Amino acid sequence: MDRLSRLEQTIAARMASGDASASYVAQLHAQGLPVIARKLGEEAVEAIVAALSGSREDLVGEAADVLFHLLVLLGEQGVPLADVLAELDRRDGTSGIDEKASRSA
Amino acid sequence: MDRLSRLEQTIAARMASGDASASYVAQLHAQGLPVIARKLGEEAVEAIVAALSGSREDLVGEAADVLFHLLVLLGEQGVPLADVLAELDRRDGTSGIDEKASRSA
Amino acid sequence: MDRLSRLEQTIAARMASGDASASYVAQLHAQGLPVIARKLGEEAVEAIVAALSGSREDLVGEAADVLFHLLVLLGEQGVPLADVLAELDRRDGTSGIDEKASRSA
Amino acid sequence: MDRLSRLEQTIAARMASGDASASYVAQLHAQGLPVIARKLGEEAVEAIVAALSGSREDLVGEAADVLFHLLVLLGEQGVPLADVLAELDRRDGTSGIDEKASRSA
Repeated sequence: MDRLSRLEQTIAARMASGDASASYVAQLHAQGLPVIARKLGEEAVEAIVAALSGSREDLVGEAADVLFHLLVLLGEQGVPLADVLAELDRRDGTSGIDEKASRSA
Repeated sequence: MDRLSRLEQTIAARMASGDASASYVAQLHAQGLPVIARKLGEEAVEAIVAALSGSREDLVGEAADVLFHLLVLLGEQGVPLADVLAELDRRDGTSGIDEKASRSA
Repeated sequence: MDRLSRLEQTIAARMASGDASASYVAQLHAQGLPVIARKLGEEAVEAIVAALSGSREDLVGEAADVLFHLLVLLGEQGVPLADVLAELDRRDGTSGIDEKASRSA
Repeated sequence: MDRLSRLEQTIAARMASGDASASYVAQLHAQGLPVIARKLGEEAVEAIVAALSGSREDLVGEAADVLFHLLVLLGEQGVPLADVLAELDRRDGTSGIDEKASRSA
């Protein structure tokens, strides 16, 4: 199993644990969807700023935060990462600009 | 090789191709880092809005867009996805709230 | 009347007109709150990118876009700009770091 | 003088004071442009989330935060609010959809 899918499972387990005092993920889950959505947005902003004015290490850290909170958001909404990867696969079959056009549609 | 790593390779190949008329990725690469960073931010905003007021399909699509543009941003900056996954692994070893605390430091 | 309040009135009039073919504001209003919220987020992202890697003119334009779409969002939700300015006034009475602390509370 | 311009002056004075221990604005100024840009982005994300799932009071507070940090960003970059308001005036002269088209150009 690849690392992102493994992380998805860890997140699901922590959400199910319900112990907000012991786990950051359980804490986010207890706070609910709006807080989780906000966190994803904030991490994306930090990734942008890191890319434009930070170090390479900053970008690695912020990109990890984006991935992590994206997985938490998907987990919160019951959307399997596999569905998102399947969507990327589907697009990858079509090429380049046409593919973006189909995405915008 | 997992799907995200395969997508990373596709993106690298398209960036290297330099044919902005044939590929959305090559087009982004030609426009440069600020445009790519902006795109990531916009897709994250769309993912937030999809999670809070869209359908499940909207969220799948927007999450795919976030992943895709995050990979483009990493590719543009020469940061391997493997480095980001290794960072996630490193954090996963530490647990829950302590792990978030270490991340905030 | 100051310029921002005048713009607030223009936006309210265009929303009330309901003619989405003739006005960008009426069009946004017809598309609804999620689209308007998304636009604000996108403009904020563009302002960040302009501040970090654009020209002074870029920043002026993007800051105008942020203000404009913030007013549209407030108008859509029926929140008078005066309430937001009153909130800023209230905070301005308290000073500096304490004021931020009170804001975070 | 309208309230936003007064706030702009307060922010400029606090930036000039250089006393980061006494003022949130001086603290932001000391941290520099990337931190200020990040804050604007985070507040915009919070405004979006407040508009889509918060109370009216949440939106008032977050909109105030967006305005406040936009003014700090402009102050940091030496861009007068008057320039941004003049840009909004300029656009307001043109109407509706055409105006948006000119803005996108």
